[in-house]
Amino acid sequence: MIQKLDFYYDVGSPHTYFAWKALQGVSKRTGLDVVMHPVLIGGIFKTTGNQPPWQAFGNVPHKIKYMLLEIERFIKDHNLVDFSFNSAFPVNTLLAMRAAIAAQEAGTHDDIYPAVFKAIWEDDKDISQPDILVQVLNEAGLDGATLIAATQTPEVKQALMDATQACVDRGAFGLPTFFLGDEMYFGKDRVWQIEQALQTA
Amino acid sequence: MIQKLDFYYDVGSPHTYFAWKALQGVSKRTGLDVVMHPVLIGGIFKTTGNQPPWQAFGNVPHKIKYMLLEIERFIKDHNLVDFSFNSAFPVNTLLAMRAAIAAQEAGTHDDIYPAVFKAIWEDDKDISQPDILVQVLNEAGLDGATLIAATQTPEVKQALMDATQACVDRGAFGLPTFFLGDEMYFGKDRVWQIEQALQTA
Repeated sequence: MIQKLDFYYDVGSPHTYFAWKALQGVSKRTGLDVVMHPVLIGGIFKTTGNQPPWQAFGNVPHKIKYMLLEIERFIKDHNLVDFSFNSAFPVNTLLAMRAAIAAQEAGTHDDIYPAVFKAIWEDDKDISQPDILVQVLNEAGLDGATLIAATQTPEVKQALMDATQACVDRGAFGLPTFFLGDEMYFGKDRVWQIEQALQTA
Repeated sequence: MIQKLDFYYDVGSPHTYFAWKALQGVSKRTGLDVVMHPVLIGGIFKTTGNQPPWQAFGNVPHKIKYMLLEIERFIKDHNLVDFSFNSAFPVNTLLAMRAAIAAQEAGTHDDIYPAVFKAIWEDDKDISQPDILVQVLNEAGLDGATLIAATQTPEVKQALMDATQACVDRGAFGLPTFFLGDEMYFGKDRVWQIEQALQTA
């Protein structure tokens, strides 16, 4: 039986990029079907009263240092040799996530998020700039101009808000958040636990 | 080759109790030598600007709920059937941790911390009360009155402060904190990672 994992993502979250990459290995080993759901991380933080870790622990330098150590370990353990930190971090992803919603409508969602993850977390592009985002989408074989135009419609704006609220309603407070059936997991460091849950299921 | 893990603990931290219990399984499987170091968690928080999670995320109910879910999973995964949450939590552990330092001097440290962990996290005792702590120590075959008397000496008070500062100097910001050689790990959820590091060493 193929199992399904709901993966809530925002392309601006490095931990979400890491988890997405690592889960590709889990899928290969277990057949796990990872279903990607675009949401806005800023909306989750605002609704739940949470903050990004670099902000929540901005005054706890030892904690930030350890977070970076665990990122290094994760990169090494999963051989994520293409990763490079984005120099525009934190990148405003409102336009990109609306474009992902528009791509869902257009039936091209499976093409958009890998291209934008790569642009931010491998190619150091500032996709908050519309012209850069259009170029990234065009190079991925998508119709960048049409997708960006769609981001300005009330329907797409509302759909991203609704998707984000639905994620919060399931219990999320940050990203990446995963659901295996009704079992929620948070953070890149739960990828091993998800694989373990699949093996004992 | 037997490997050594430095384990910094405060008996008042439930996550530290969980990690201590889970590491007993790792020791059985790998021969890992777990060396327990008494420190004061409140001192670590104060020095590093950190807070306990129930305080840092007190206004993020979804995060607290998820933390409790992960505690449930950890208890189930490691079969920690004796655990029960302490009704006096957060328990003031200053006296108990000073007693642990005094026990180090007396050569009875290996007897004191298992008894106090059990008193707090299995038997729901409020060991911040000196008479209750004395009773717990006596029942563990220790000389409770002598250890409690020792906690009031400047040497023991200073030794706990020094031990806590030494832990912070290695990079700690909370508990449980572990070092395998110079590699630091934080939190009960790193126990699997420590076991993995032992297997690939």
